Amino acid sequence: MLNIGLLGCGRIGQVHGRSISQIAGARVAAVADAFEAPAKALAEKTGAQVMEAAALIASAEVDAVVIGTPTDTHYDLIHAAAAAGKAIFCEKPVDMSADRIRDCIKAVEAAGVPFMTAFNRRFDPNFANVQARIAAGEIGAVEIVTIQSRDPSPPPVSYIQSSGGLFRDMMIHDLDMARFLLGEEPVSVYAVGASLVDPEIGRAGDVDTAAVTLTTQSGRICQITNSRRASYGYDQRIEVHGEKGMLRAENVLENTVEIATASGFRKAPAQHFFLERYDAAYRAEMAHFVDAVINQRPVTPGITDGLRAQILADAATLSFEKGTVIALG
Amino acid sequence: MLNIGLLGCGRIGQVHGRSISQIAGARVAAVADAFEAPAKALAEKTGAQVMEAAALIASAEVDAVVIGTPTDTHYDLIHAAAAAGKAIFCEKPVDMSADRIRDCIKAVEAAGVPFMTAFNRRFDPNFANVQARIAAGEIGAVEIVTIQSRDPSPPPVSYIQSSGGLFRDMMIHDLDMARFLLGEEPVSVYAVGASLVDPEIGRAGDVDTAAVTLTTQSGRICQITNSRRASYGYDQRIEVHGEKGMLRAENVLENTVEIATASGFRKAPAQHFFLERYDAAYRAEMAHFVDAVINQRPVTPGITDGLRAQILADAATLSFEKGTVIALG
Amino acid sequence: MLNIGLLGCGRIGQVHGRSISQIAGARVAAVADAFEAPAKALAEKTGAQVMEAAALIASAEVDAVVIGTPTDTHYDLIHAAAAAGKAIFCEKPVDMSADRIRDCIKAVEAAGVPFMTAFNRRFDPNFANVQARIAAGEIGAVEIVTIQSRDPSPPPVSYIQSSGGLFRDMMIHDLDMARFLLGEEPVSVYAVGASLVDPEIGRAGDVDTAAVTLTTQSGRICQITNSRRASYGYDQRIEVHGEKGMLRAENVLENTVEIATASGFRKAPAQHFFLERYDAAYRAEMAHFVDAVINQRPVTPGITDGLRAQILADAATLSFEKGTVIALG
Amino acid sequence: MLNIGLLGCGRIGQVHGRSISQIAGARVAAVADAFEAPAKALAEKTGAQVMEAAALIASAEVDAVVIGTPTDTHYDLIHAAAAAGKAIFCEKPVDMSADRIRDCIKAVEAAGVPFMTAFNRRFDPNFANVQARIAAGEIGAVEIVTIQSRDPSPPPVSYIQSSGGLFRDMMIHDLDMARFLLGEEPVSVYAVGASLVDPEIGRAGDVDTAAVTLTTQSGRICQITNSRRASYGYDQRIEVHGEKGMLRAENVLENTVEIATASGFRKAPAQHFFLERYDAAYRAEMAHFVDAVINQRPVTPGITDGLRAQILADAATLSFEKGTVIALG
Repeated sequence: MLNIGLLGCGRIGQVHGRSISQIAGARVAAVADAFEAPAKALAEKTGAQVMEAAALIASAEVDAVVIGTPTDTHYDLIHAAAAAGKAIFCEKPVDMSADRIRDCIKAVEAAGVPFMTAFNRRFDPNFANVQARIAAGEIGAVEIVTIQSRDPSPPPVSYIQSSGGLFRDMMIHDLDMARFLLGEEPVSVYAVGASLVDPEIGRAGDVDTAAVTLTTQSGRICQITNSRRASYGYDQRIEVHGEKGMLRAENVLENTVEIATASGFRKAPAQHFFLERYDAAYRAEMAHFVDAVINQRPVTPGITDGLRAQILADAATLSFEKGTVIALG
Repeated sequence: MLNIGLLGCGRIGQVHGRSISQIAGARVAAVADAFEAPAKALAEKTGAQVMEAAALIASAEVDAVVIGTPTDTHYDLIHAAAAAGKAIFCEKPVDMSADRIRDCIKAVEAAGVPFMTAFNRRFDPNFANVQARIAAGEIGAVEIVTIQSRDPSPPPVSYIQSSGGLFRDMMIHDLDMARFLLGEEPVSVYAVGASLVDPEIGRAGDVDTAAVTLTTQSGRICQITNSRRASYGYDQRIEVHGEKGMLRAENVLENTVEIATASGFRKAPAQHFFLERYDAAYRAEMAHFVDAVINQRPVTPGITDGLRAQILADAATLSFEKGTVIALG
Repeated sequence: MLNIGLLGCGRIGQVHGRSISQIAGARVAAVADAFEAPAKALAEKTGAQVMEAAALIASAEVDAVVIGTPTDTHYDLIHAAAAAGKAIFCEKPVDMSADRIRDCIKAVEAAGVPFMTAFNRRFDPNFANVQARIAAGEIGAVEIVTIQSRDPSPPPVSYIQSSGGLFRDMMIHDLDMARFLLGEEPVSVYAVGASLVDPEIGRAGDVDTAAVTLTTQSGRICQITNSRRASYGYDQRIEVHGEKGMLRAENVLENTVEIATASGFRKAPAQHFFLERYDAAYRAEMAHFVDAVINQRPVTPGITDGLRAQILADAATLSFEKGTVIALG
Repeated sequence: MLNIGLLGCGRIGQVHGRSISQIAGARVAAVADAFEAPAKALAEKTGAQVMEAAALIASAEVDAVVIGTPTDTHYDLIHAAAAAGKAIFCEKPVDMSADRIRDCIKAVEAAGVPFMTAFNRRFDPNFANVQARIAAGEIGAVEIVTIQSRDPSPPPVSYIQSSGGLFRDMMIHDLDMARFLLGEEPVSVYAVGASLVDPEIGRAGDVDTAAVTLTTQSGRICQITNSRRASYGYDQRIEVHGEKGMLRAENVLENTVEIATASGFRKAPAQHFFLERYDAAYRAEMAHFVDAVINQRPVTPGITDGLRAQILADAATLSFEKGTVIALG
């Protein structure tokens, strides 16, 4: 039985709490949050103890921690948890600064603890199926990856202002997905963007509509488009073209019902947003973490995956700001 | 070069005229119609001569006739054309009376001329593909056939009154398709129906909504539904379930465009009606006839297929009228 | 908090136990089973007490019972639970005999307790959506209902022998669905069937391939096909044609991934079988029961729905055996 | 009746000849080709006269010319036809050199003759439907355009060598489509590419896999991907995301048949290549030309559309060669 301590009991902490409840080999042993109410509520639901974060990390009854606190607290919590020898499951982004992530990598490697960067989309059953079939050779060598990712509606400008910008806040998921599917590291990044959805976002110095092109050493290409708006639900699609064929994962619709009338054949919108769309992915990523820690198998995506996605997001931001192509080491 | 004489220059005669124009090895040599205008128009378009029907049939310059005149004239024209040794392409139904079709069979067999009953749907590229793949064993032995066939809107009651009723006028196409796909002759027929679309149709003694169940000696089952109404276009679908899997042909939509909005994902309606939906089928059936006659290969569907479909339509009508199951010889 | 006693801790009892665990207002208070091991296991998972069935029904700590025991025990358990004033959730079929169901109705009505017949498919989000939109008038008056229902593979002949036959064991779900969608009671039943999948099933006096046609007073038609075999997964589709259009619910596939190669565009098979396909439906039906009992709202489908489905299954069986159409009161 | 002279009787000339035959208000009056055989064959089929190109252009019996000769002959033929006052339908590209196209524009404008650049894809019923619905405001202002275009298999290297390179030979269609759909002129072009399909193509100095990003003044984005290989047929898809929703045109498959087996649900490959896929588009573009010339309505796309597409293709080629973003006037 893996005893897990939850650091952060907000929306994502609750998601992870529910996932752990459904895994045979794990339980929520302790919870911590800056606010009392959410910590207490989650504790009641799961039978966990409420503790201070430091005490939770230090507790002998906690084998692993799930870090679901604000991004700027990750750095210290990772260092503390690593020092305490706990396995670490950390929400993305690991940190807003690539250099600080490098610090974390040192701490984690020095401690020798398992570390998982929670890029949940790798565990979506559809996207995971695409990647597994690429790995199995079903379409031969990858040539072109196309990723479409659109939120149903923009967040408030207050959120935008502290988000690090679209490329670091939203596209980082797609940049990780690109690495997951390309099978090679990107060597160039080109980004364009505009504020077409909400002028307030533009005035806040960010974009709400963007596209990135990545290339790899051998010439593979990835194109990504992002928008903070999609009237038809949470638009999450990937497509991979290889030498033998093409694999694509379509949106998950609200249901399978189709109505036919004089205006044609109409299906439901896409599932509304990430909690619903990635429900299975959240459960699968936690199951992977628990299984890997218990059975001492590699945890993936690891902390260097977190670093590389951040480097790509930084490069995309820079490319957009300068209007030039950015070459990567 | 096969010289074809068109008997009947109405809507369907014009369709066949266009088809012949696109076939390398055939030409419209002569046309005949009770009215002068359509005959002249078709002659101009195709370069054919306008003739009286009797003269056309007798003409040494005509190798084959296409009978597209009203049903009650088929009997005499078939006898005349057979006696003149012409290959015959005849619109369905061959005749409203099974006994009179039996007479025609005798005449055609005595003359030894090729005869094709124009069940055009067998030549629809989608349906033909389904049948070819059944024949190739892709789904093993057939178990259940499901046919959905709905017109976009009901014909005028005046048409209904002389149509022979829905089972003979509309469902006869599906009954032939059932035979085409089942691979065995039906041994029982059960029909239900109602007037749900237009009460005038009910008052005229006919139905506008109907369903039939057929069974074969070995236990194969076919279910057919018909309606004189479908807001979403001409609904023409078949599905065949066999021991190894299922084959189905979906509707042909007006285009491949999909729009996604807050109300979901919407595609175009089905192609509107038979001239559009079966355009390729009309061309393919004529190409088959010309090729078979020129190369002295079997013409199919033949006149006995016309007879058997009529027998099934008669049995369905009787089943509906009596409310009982009808056993077939 | 609704305290629920589970009668029967086999596969379906475990499903209901899991569903209850996810409902805020209910808990598994007690469990009973003829065998100790499954009862103990389910008790451990849910924190419930293990009891004898009679004691469970009598217990003051139990507000409602879930009957998931073998069909031949339902009659006595329903009578006992009704007498004890418990709300009752009962697996289908209520009983194999319509007369004995009528006895149960008397007992339930005399006791005035809520009773739910667990026709889970009514709670499938796709099928429920179709029914809700019919009720909302989206396609106008219903004209034709088509139900396709196929198991992935046949059960062992030993199961067949005590199953009551395909019409009572398998098609009863579709007969209930027909009532759910037609909006009118069937007045005639015609059934055909054959043993095409497994000759052993035929030798055991049952069919594995069947079709039924239902009609209602106003002329609405329902066609149902069943097979004990479908290579492509659990085939569960409904389609409803009405005056204004058509609503259909397609199969739920294992994922949304499509591969394109020289052989075409291929998607995943349908979800394999009922536990997976109707997972959401099992949760939704229990949520409905708990909500209705707590808030004293009508429970549906009720015990008369269980009776009517059984009457239809009996009529279909008789129709098949006699080869005739059966009229219903 | 518009009398058309066909310059060039190769594959594309034959396509246009067939299209003209199906248009009521036009006929092929004369044909010319460097080789006698194809000219004679086409003349026989259409009833046209065989002439020398110069004589054809000069002929008083020719109202309009269709230029389907090799690209390097377009310049002289356009000048001659313009001087002769003929309406001109010209295959793409107008010329490989933007400057020479500017010369042609002067000649055409000086002569005041109608000129159509044959970007046939604008007339594909699916793509035309997308553009018409954008114009009608169905998705509001355009934000992101995604174009996927892949040939089934690469041409021989000999063709590649004189093609001007992928961006000018293949992607020019997509660059025109981008302009058609964006509704604004691109102001920046970024291109990447590699030789992943056939190393011979790389050795010939070209790419077979490429992607382009375009931006417009207001911030609209277009992403295009091209490949010289697609195992599943001719991959031709467009997708446009706007403020109110998304419009997309999927591939046209060979038929509507789907087979379901243990390996899932499989549909036919995409239609194989351009003659089949754009058959309707070829007919529609000629119908537009004939109608516009006869009724003195604007012909579109015009010669400046040919110029702008060429400028974009040149910019993409330069961007790829330099590895930088190219700003456009």
